[in-house]
Amino acid sequence: MKILVIGAAGMVGRKLVTALLQSGQVGGQAVSALTLADVIEPEVVAAQVPVTTVAADLSTDGVATSLLADRPDLIFHLAAIVSGEAEADFEKGYRINLDGTRYLFEAIRLAGVSAAYRPRVVFTSSIAVFGEPLPEVIGDTHERTPLTSYGTQKAIGELLLADYSRRGFLDGIGIRLPTIVVRPGKPNKAASGFFSGIIREPLAGLEAVLPVDDTVRHWFASPRAAVGFLLHAAAMDTVLLGNQRSLSMPGLAATVGDEIAALERAAGAKATALIRRERNEAIASMVAGWPQAFDAKRAIALGFKGDGSFDDIIRIYVEDELGG
Amino acid sequence: MKILVIGAAGMVGRKLVTALLQSGQVGGQAVSALTLADVIEPEVVAAQVPVTTVAADLSTDGVATSLLADRPDLIFHLAAIVSGEAEADFEKGYRINLDGTRYLFEAIRLAGVSAAYRPRVVFTSSIAVFGEPLPEVIGDTHERTPLTSYGTQKAIGELLLADYSRRGFLDGIGIRLPTIVVRPGKPNKAASGFFSGIIREPLAGLEAVLPVDDTVRHWFASPRAAVGFLLHAAAMDTVLLGNQRSLSMPGLAATVGDEIAALERAAGAKATALIRRERNEAIASMVAGWPQAFDAKRAIALGFKGDGSFDDIIRIYVEDELGG
Repeated sequence: MKILVIGAAGMVGRKLVTALLQSGQVGGQAVSALTLADVIEPEVVAAQVPVTTVAADLSTDGVATSLLADRPDLIFHLAAIVSGEAEADFEKGYRINLDGTRYLFEAIRLAGVSAAYRPRVVFTSSIAVFGEPLPEVIGDTHERTPLTSYGTQKAIGELLLADYSRRGFLDGIGIRLPTIVVRPGKPNKAASGFFSGIIREPLAGLEAVLPVDDTVRHWFASPRAAVGFLLHAAAMDTVLLGNQRSLSMPGLAATVGDEIAALERAAGAKATALIRRERNEAIASMVAGWPQAFDAKRAIALGFKGDGSFDDIIRIYVEDELGG
Repeated sequence: MKILVIGAAGMVGRKLVTALLQSGQVGGQAVSALTLADVIEPEVVAAQVPVTTVAADLSTDGVATSLLADRPDLIFHLAAIVSGEAEADFEKGYRINLDGTRYLFEAIRLAGVSAAYRPRVVFTSSIAVFGEPLPEVIGDTHERTPLTSYGTQKAIGELLLADYSRRGFLDGIGIRLPTIVVRPGKPNKAASGFFSGIIREPLAGLEAVLPVDDTVRHWFASPRAAVGFLLHAAAMDTVLLGNQRSLSMPGLAATVGDEIAALERAAGAKATALIRRERNEAIASMVAGWPQAFDAKRAIALGFKGDGSFDDIIRIYVEDELGG
């Protein structure tokens, strides 16, 4: 099975590649070759199978077609400009998140004209496709009314994925990732960055700014759970999806207060004392429009598995990023 | 008030132009100039104000920008490839229905860079944005899961309209038109054409083919009601829309049997005898996935008005198309 990972240099992309090489198979089929693409050259990884790295921008003419040269059987499309950046740079957000996605789907369709080709495409969507009016718990058939350009671009990606799948051009599945915590490394430009920051920085002995109230409730998954979602999406029977090709993933609903309590259990009051409350009205008002919780019945019935508790999420961060 | 109508040569477009010129105003503001654009040159109409006609394809480079040369205050975007054709010609459907719409919105955004510009944009969407799973009556917050490429393109148009409105680039309102009956003239390529045909042809003494069962229930509006929706959308206070810029219009739910009964009341059994039942599985299975009825609470609360009965719909056709 030949696999293409677009967005392979990102946090989730790198963890996915590690998991693919560790298991050596997807749904019982052996991985035979891996192509890793991103706008910055992905790190070369040691592997038993041929691994090709490509530095290329999916929104540039011809790139999508060239990425399909060896006709991969499975494509993970994780590449995206994050919410904060897509909001700050309107044109760049649409170019990467909408045009890039469409060029990929079009290249797949056109690759199928000369000879049959219908790869599995796992597309990472986002809970940002949902916006006001929002119930406290969002069900599986709730309408998509995004409140950001990023959410709009992801919602459009979901619509294209469903139509291209319905027409038989590809075999798509869109997974709406919860907010990933705890993100390792430095903060990125996502407006949701503080959800990770208030755990990551105190565990490193650093101060973290909390721009919203402790009562803010949100929907989370660990990077390990996110990789699990991707691998399950790659192997599952997509006939079960019908025409609804995108699914809200089973995250964990927790408040900022729940996060802080879990941090205190893990690292004591000296850690939580490093959280500095400094309300930021712009971030607070953006976050107020975000989903708080989902009833992810469909995804659970289809076998997707989330995290058990915020304590688990912190433990996974400590194990995977801080050496246990 | 300068007005641009894109798709002005279509059935609804022509009736809209007539109505605009008859009233001479929109929301109390006098119409000062009218530009009529379509892929085929719109008919020149007699008017008290300057009327310009343009034959141009919105999906062609530079066309959208040139249509905005006189910075219209109000833009009706009605241009679209219909459902049957968008399904038959995948590339053409996406080019006209998605690219054309996006080019228009982009040209508006870029026209606002040099000097403030934020026109009202009335976009005709469609109930084809809804697909399985469908409740018997579709509410105002139902998810969009289109089952056709046309419905997908319209759903994407709605998402773009909302995002461009939220960002302040335009002041958009999307109206999801019911299926328009009775369409005058010849059948077009829409799969829904028979809903008009079984009224129109018998009234002209011609045979009409009915490809589905009498029990099929669907959602209708007369052309006169459709023009009323467009004019109301052009004048209403869009602040009331919030971030939900697209609305299902108040149509009339009726079965094919209801249609035929109304035809019999209007023109007797000699008319209904001209309906030949010839089931077409392809059309029947497509229609089975279509919406049957809506609870259009929001639109009604915002002042949109539909038809009262199918008898009214036939009466309007006879008055407006057959000279009473």
